[in-house]
Amino acid sequence: MSSFPKTPEPPYYAVIFSSRRTLGDNGYDAMAERMLELVPQQPGFLGTESARGEDGFGITVSYWSSAEAMACWKANMEHVVAQEMGKAAWYEHYELRVAKVERAYGKASP
Amino acid sequence: MSSFPKTPEPPYYAVIFSSRRTLGDNGYDAMAERMLELVPQQPGFLGTESARGEDGFGITVSYWSSAEAMACWKANMEHVVAQEMGKAAWYEHYELRVAKVERAYGKASP
Repeated sequence: MSSFPKTPEPPYYAVIFSSRRTLGDNGYDAMAERMLELVPQQPGFLGTESARGEDGFGITVSYWSSAEAMACWKANMEHVVAQEMGKAAWYEHYELRVAKVERAYGKASP
Repeated sequence: MSSFPKTPEPPYYAVIFSSRRTLGDNGYDAMAERMLELVPQQPGFLGTESARGEDGFGITVSYWSSAEAMACWKANMEHVVAQEMGKAAWYEHYELRVAKVERAYGKASP
């Protein structure tokens, strides 16, 4: 079940990854699980949020303490393989945006 | 069906809205439709992406040309009513983050 990460006071970074999946699994689920295992071990990782609708369109946002932390995860060897598989097999279309979070607020049920 | 907005070269702004819905509609669908009708009329609006999974967790990202454009939409009277309804009835929990997009790239099927 998706949930809300506890992020610190801004500024910090967000990687907004929007994608539409291709049909079929093609190894996606196993790799996604491996990435979710790996990413919390990364220095500077603050959390992630993810949602995908029944139409195959999904958004994953990961939060990072610094540009260096993001660069380090981007260059992680297993993650590089996942990125290549994503381009080749899993995503019909994706957009990735790197953004600096400047303000944040929220509301949780009491 | 959700899709990918055509955003310009960075920099521009992103509002990342993560939420978990309460049970029941409570007028949500009609208001969401009205907001989707209203928001493209806003000056500085660049596009929006949205995904919600079966577990009720969703992410909507809207893109804006400037901080002024975001502030103007936040203060829109009908949108203010929607924000209050959201707090009171539609969202069990939400987090809103305002971020400045610094880099962007993607891949679309040929």
